[in-house]
Amino acid sequence: MTFSALSHLECPRCGATHDADRIIGLCPCGSPLLARYGVPELKKQDLTTRPPDLWRYHELLPVRSPENVVTLGEGMTPLLPLPRYGAALGVDRLLMKDEGLIPTGTFKARGAAVGVSRAYELGVRKIAMPTNGNAGSAWAAYAARAGMEALIAMPRAAPEICRREVTAVGARLQLIDGLIGDAAAYIREQPGYFDASTLKEPYRIEGKKTMGLEIAEQLNWQLPDVIVYPTGGGVGIIGIWKALTELRDLGWIDGPLPRLVAVQSTGCAPIVRAWEKGLPESEPWPDAQTVAFGITVPKALGDFLVLQAIAETDGCAVAVDDDDILTEQHRVAQLEGAFVCPEGAANFAAIRTLRESGWIHADDQVVALNTGAGLKYPETVPL
Amino acid sequence: MTFSALSHLECPRCGATHDADRIIGLCPCGSPLLARYGVPELKKQDLTTRPPDLWRYHELLPVRSPENVVTLGEGMTPLLPLPRYGAALGVDRLLMKDEGLIPTGTFKARGAAVGVSRAYELGVRKIAMPTNGNAGSAWAAYAARAGMEALIAMPRAAPEICRREVTAVGARLQLIDGLIGDAAAYIREQPGYFDASTLKEPYRIEGKKTMGLEIAEQLNWQLPDVIVYPTGGGVGIIGIWKALTELRDLGWIDGPLPRLVAVQSTGCAPIVRAWEKGLPESEPWPDAQTVAFGITVPKALGDFLVLQAIAETDGCAVAVDDDDILTEQHRVAQLEGAFVCPEGAANFAAIRTLRESGWIHADDQVVALNTGAGLKYPETVPL
Repeated sequence: MTFSALSHLECPRCGATHDADRIIGLCPCGSPLLARYGVPELKKQDLTTRPPDLWRYHELLPVRSPENVVTLGEGMTPLLPLPRYGAALGVDRLLMKDEGLIPTGTFKARGAAVGVSRAYELGVRKIAMPTNGNAGSAWAAYAARAGMEALIAMPRAAPEICRREVTAVGARLQLIDGLIGDAAAYIREQPGYFDASTLKEPYRIEGKKTMGLEIAEQLNWQLPDVIVYPTGGGVGIIGIWKALTELRDLGWIDGPLPRLVAVQSTGCAPIVRAWEKGLPESEPWPDAQTVAFGITVPKALGDFLVLQAIAETDGCAVAVDDDDILTEQHRVAQLEGAFVCPEGAANFAAIRTLRESGWIHADDQVVALNTGAGLKYPETVPL
Repeated sequence: MTFSALSHLECPRCGATHDADRIIGLCPCGSPLLARYGVPELKKQDLTTRPPDLWRYHELLPVRSPENVVTLGEGMTPLLPLPRYGAALGVDRLLMKDEGLIPTGTFKARGAAVGVSRAYELGVRKIAMPTNGNAGSAWAAYAARAGMEALIAMPRAAPEICRREVTAVGARLQLIDGLIGDAAAYIREQPGYFDASTLKEPYRIEGKKTMGLEIAEQLNWQLPDVIVYPTGGGVGIIGIWKALTELRDLGWIDGPLPRLVAVQSTGCAPIVRAWEKGLPESEPWPDAQTVAFGITVPKALGDFLVLQAIAETDGCAVAVDDDDILTEQHRVAQLEGAFVCPEGAANFAAIRTLRESGWIHADDQVVALNTGAGLKYPETVPL
């Protein structure tokens, strides 16, 4: 039995292939690299008796040896029907995948678990990364779990709880006056660390793709019509697209893929603008600012992949106002008891818009990803 | 197929039995009531293919009809080995069950899910309860999910995040100048609400007992030597004891039960004092105060059951200092990447003490319950 079917790394821009068992960042052409797999020794039915965490899909993940798995019990988050709130939105078949129920309280734990595990397997012992907060919390926690050193650079405006989480697990925290790009510039100057920035290493996305694998399994391999995702760096939506493509190649699912929707804030909507203009890449967004801090990414390295994912699935990109984000956050809490993060609430504002415009139909099955726990954003609710 | 094997309610003090299908609070004798079950149509193996939430044990839970289940995806939290920290404590086989990965971020969600579901099933539409914070967050969330009204009374000193959670889901929040007993007095005066106070209704404990069921299942029905639990109202430890007793009656486990350890803070240790004096009940603790706010319960209604649980399992009760709680909270974060709540950290301070005294042996398998996410206690970590 082979634990992982990982075969090699491939560049989605220039097509070059690379050895997956050496430490590597970007393709020499400047693009992120994607992991490719051989045919795994795995049947759908094998999954049913495995533990409910993301490592149940280990054949489709890049870690070659079980002893290198660094885990805090992440994955198989609930996929909850939201009947009352769905009725209020005019979407009866609305589901929410709740990524608040995962270590460190956000979906970033998935990327960190797989990214840290694979880095550890390849011999890395010191990682560094820029972050809007939650990714830093997650990578710091998994680095501690692995016994690795971590250096996290974070804008001063990032959620306070993330600073405390990074400090709590003993990582080095560097606060930055600026946005995530400025934090990235700082990290590039630090010698001796492995740069675990978004999409600069190929395995974070492999962790995130498990959201797509889980949605498919939880719906008994019958895909929904629409999947809605709050998009900053875009790794989540690229990961879900990658997962569904891989499942289709395995023959585990068929028919058209769900229409993927990238949601941004009107305060930082580079991908929406590129989508509306029909551009293959985004342009840097000036003066980016939104209450959904996690998606304040003025220019994402993987923007072209996000645009490709929504184009190839007949999806779209939508920007929503901060006021609408907070309004929907409170509505879903009151109607369903779910205290979601602002990024997660942005989805619901987008679903409302898309339902009103007719882009989402009344009988569509729609899955919204709540990317994190509202607990991490206490200031979004009055005291 | 019968969804629940619930048979009747029984008083553990006077032995009286009561109809389980009528709304009832305490036994007329003043004791909490316990749910009793017939022999369920369930085999261990049936569980393996059920979804990973606490409703997988529905035959052993009190909700009679699946349509009355109110769920946010709670349960089957990870049981994590802590090898590095365990070695530091001198307990190589140390496991932590992480109740931070559950809706509202604490184990209180279990009691709320089952308690609200069963109350709803019996026709209740308005609930009220006193709380140290987390139970209020959980019951408010599940009440919202059920479409019920909720009134939550909470000491002003309770964690700020809990106030926000209660408000977010649209429950009525009443702040109290005093401790949980004062909040309880306020609730008793509110007409028209079902009083969902700790152990005043019989079903919260049924939700909490699923921690015990899960530990047994996750360890493949081979029980650990010791289970350590931070004890305020005591429902968690009573619930785990009840679960293990029920599993033994079913013949699913055998041999001695794990030694149960009730952990309190030296700032509020009524059960420890009663245990040391050999008393069957505790006396109210004056001037109760501890950083582990969730276990600030000066006099618990179920104290006699906690004392019975630890006596019958050859367990014990231990009090630990606030300083030691915070020290262990930071140690486990740095060695394992797990940011636990102060109540959860109290367990580790107790394990250190009990290992040093020889009460816990080096080769004992020890399960510590982390009752909630450190995210809810940001002030326990420096900024």
